[in-house]
Amino acid sequence: MRRFATTLVLVSLCFFFVFPCCRAQRGRPRLLERFARPGNRARAYQYEERYFRQSLDHFSFADLPPFDQRYLIANTGAWARPAGPIFFYCGNEGDIEWFADNTGFVWDIAPRFSALVVFAEHRYYGKSMPYGSQEKAYKNAESLSYLTTEQALADFSALLTDLKRNLSSEESPVVLFGGSYGGMLAAWMRLKYPHIAIGALASSAPILQFEDIVPPDTFYDLVSNDFKRESLSCFEAIKESWKVLETQGEDNDGLLKLSRDFRLCQNLNNTEELSDWLSSAYSYLAMVDYPYPSDFMMPLPANPIKEVCRKIDNYLDGTTVLERIFAGVSIYYNYTGNVDCFDLEDDPHGLSGWNWQACTEMVMPMSSSQENSMFPAYDFDYAAYQDQCLQDYGVRPRPRWITTEFGGHDIKTALKKFGSNIIFSNGLLDPWSGGSVLQNVSESIIALVTELGAHHIDLRASTKEDPDWLVEQRNTEINLIKGWLYDYYQEKASYYIL
Amino acid sequence: MRRFATTLVLVSLCFFFVFPCCRAQRGRPRLLERFARPGNRARAYQYEERYFRQSLDHFSFADLPPFDQRYLIANTGAWARPAGPIFFYCGNEGDIEWFADNTGFVWDIAPRFSALVVFAEHRYYGKSMPYGSQEKAYKNAESLSYLTTEQALADFSALLTDLKRNLSSEESPVVLFGGSYGGMLAAWMRLKYPHIAIGALASSAPILQFEDIVPPDTFYDLVSNDFKRESLSCFEAIKESWKVLETQGEDNDGLLKLSRDFRLCQNLNNTEELSDWLSSAYSYLAMVDYPYPSDFMMPLPANPIKEVCRKIDNYLDGTTVLERIFAGVSIYYNYTGNVDCFDLEDDPHGLSGWNWQACTEMVMPMSSSQENSMFPAYDFDYAAYQDQCLQDYGVRPRPRWITTEFGGHDIKTALKKFGSNIIFSNGLLDPWSGGSVLQNVSESIIALVTELGAHHIDLRASTKEDPDWLVEQRNTEINLIKGWLYDYYQEKASYYIL
Repeated sequence: MRRFATTLVLVSLCFFFVFPCCRAQRGRPRLLERFARPGNRARAYQYEERYFRQSLDHFSFADLPPFDQRYLIANTGAWARPAGPIFFYCGNEGDIEWFADNTGFVWDIAPRFSALVVFAEHRYYGKSMPYGSQEKAYKNAESLSYLTTEQALADFSALLTDLKRNLSSEESPVVLFGGSYGGMLAAWMRLKYPHIAIGALASSAPILQFEDIVPPDTFYDLVSNDFKRESLSCFEAIKESWKVLETQGEDNDGLLKLSRDFRLCQNLNNTEELSDWLSSAYSYLAMVDYPYPSDFMMPLPANPIKEVCRKIDNYLDGTTVLERIFAGVSIYYNYTGNVDCFDLEDDPHGLSGWNWQACTEMVMPMSSSQENSMFPAYDFDYAAYQDQCLQDYGVRPRPRWITTEFGGHDIKTALKKFGSNIIFSNGLLDPWSGGSVLQNVSESIIALVTELGAHHIDLRASTKEDPDWLVEQRNTEINLIKGWLYDYYQEKASYYIL
Repeated sequence: MRRFATTLVLVSLCFFFVFPCCRAQRGRPRLLERFARPGNRARAYQYEERYFRQSLDHFSFADLPPFDQRYLIANTGAWARPAGPIFFYCGNEGDIEWFADNTGFVWDIAPRFSALVVFAEHRYYGKSMPYGSQEKAYKNAESLSYLTTEQALADFSALLTDLKRNLSSEESPVVLFGGSYGGMLAAWMRLKYPHIAIGALASSAPILQFEDIVPPDTFYDLVSNDFKRESLSCFEAIKESWKVLETQGEDNDGLLKLSRDFRLCQNLNNTEELSDWLSSAYSYLAMVDYPYPSDFMMPLPANPIKEVCRKIDNYLDGTTVLERIFAGVSIYYNYTGNVDCFDLEDDPHGLSGWNWQACTEMVMPMSSSQENSMFPAYDFDYAAYQDQCLQDYGVRPRPRWITTEFGGHDIKTALKKFGSNIIFSNGLLDPWSGGSVLQNVSESIIALVTELGAHHIDLRASTKEDPDWLVEQRNTEINLIKGWLYDYYQEKASYYIL
């Protein structure tokens, strides 16, 4: 019997959601790894796996063991031409192979730039484990304490500096790529390390999803809009379902019945476990609502929200709302039809890397509004959030640190006369777009917004089914990158002319 | 009897020199503090002393005790007008009061901008001691490990963010000031935290004095040039003196005689101790070769190198070269005539903060060339340097880290399309000018170079004796800062118009 580790799905491309209802930290996303390496898929691109020795703490000189960071490098390990560019992917919170295999855009366009492709793994994920193993790295708050964004950026910078030196190509321009959390890293790295990289394509990078920069209900409102857009009745069925679910859970044997009806491997302890599971499906569906079949998060049909809503809307008389809901989310959790039961508790320790990051720096306040959202109403409760982090890890979050370190408030003023060569690309179907940069900041800090795009669709490999707007968006990106490289080499050439 | 703690002098405004000859780390500068607070001087400016609670490690979540960072704030503690600018001095490696008292330019110009003046102390200096006391903070490599530049910049950013919030003036533009190491901090902070500060005046900030960016003999060549410029015979006497000193040291009772002739409080163990002492005097004289009397480093006459060379050159027949040298350096070490003997060993623990910084990040390679320098020939020997750091602290330097973190190589390309609003001001008499930015990088990253300026003379309070070029330089700086502020407020105003 195949069990389906559903809670893993909460991971998504990443990012912590505080799930609706009265909880603070339950339902935090877990590691992606199992999804990152689908068992039988052939590796999509050719690369070598290499390791680079890193300081565990770049910003102190405490006596800590170094660790080996994994990176993947195009299998030639060298350029098609000397001093060619490096296309560098800033690895997210997961196994880097998964990102390498799912970021076809970089592989697709590298040959025409004679660029060397490098995908760098983020510390504490995949095989890039401090202290020698995941078990040791994730042992406790002390061992986890060096899992921070600033350290990850410093890793990338140290790796690139060393790589260029070893290749005797110190003048090679570096272009950064990243999607989602990786996109945030790409943007921040361009801002913090302009001497290392000449530009960044930051796709679906919600660098403004902190503090009070954007309204906290943005994310869930956008998810809800995506469903409403497909079908108002679908949206309303989902909105209605939470109460039904709660009422049913209060019945005698109600939780047992719900567990059976939703084909869970274990019995529910409370209805929240189930509403988390459902909420996750809707959120992830909004992220991967691509116009063609995909298996990025899960094997899914084209326009999966449309399919989900079709299931929810097209029911026989007498079908209950929960039956319709189950039929709908099964599109997400069981499109292949191979799953016998769904396992909601696959990681009893709750020690995933993103959980830690969410409990330290990555505090993204999220609420769910009564008016616009199809999710249960929920107001972000920082005190409860902090308590949960203290309970889980003994660590106190620094909710204002990211904006102190990277900015975000009034970003236009801060960056208008500072910084250059960043593309923020976003699709408005993507619920993370609400926390991203959607307007041009300056002549070279550009927002590319597509109405029908979902979570970093532009970074995916091109397919025959790509709609015109996507082809166009990618061409714009290619031309902007061309411009950065042209300017860079012109600048270099001018030294020799003078 | 008054002893004079001469080795303290090696501190200077800061900066580690590897002193000529065959050593790696001996002669490292020590803390400034005693000089920083001359006993009987009245405080030059009116400010309050305040403290701000900081994370000891901003970039990890290790369980470390917070510490209280001291800052000085203009005594009103508020602006003359709402949302006025903050003029923020980035504290160097010393007691902040010393910098506040010696950076009159900021105090002089603040009223005309209605600016609030803040001087922030650098962690591990003055009263900003982690672990509660200097003794505990400086106990060992573990306790010292958070004394890094990146942490100091994060301190400044956290302090400013909190300060503006508490003053309900989040939109106040911040202008950074700093001289020497403080200037490096100001420039780097503008680059790393553009959302915190709109511009920086980085005076005498040798941000290029790392790795192989500038030739390693730059510093000592510039010191030598300053002496040669005043008097070729003076330069030659100094150049000649090292050999005489060494030969004399080899005689029976040679060291004893040298100790007596140079009025040292203790007997020399070797001639290097004496040559360090002399070398320091020459280097510091070059830095503070101001055109008017000053007591920044030491009480000194106007144009002190001219005075030193006058002593060295104008000797009676039969005076030995070492007697002339002694007469010369006495201008530096004993201009007041109050010193009975000179103490070369005042800090037996060698645990000054800059020593640690030089043994970790601040590795500035320095050589002394046979051809152009008046100092003994010396080639920077990194292996010996590292060994000494391992011996002194058990710490291994990261000589390439600063350029990885902050850049420096090919700075023009890196910053031409990135960054704005930085003034690099330098006087060519200052030996640190050789490692600084001496050419405009872009329209708003400006180099102001004065031929006759010494170490950050522009930051000193204006005096009636200021030469025209200095008045002019300061006016240019004021106008540039005015422009930054004008642009900032225009940008803000435009939001309300649109």
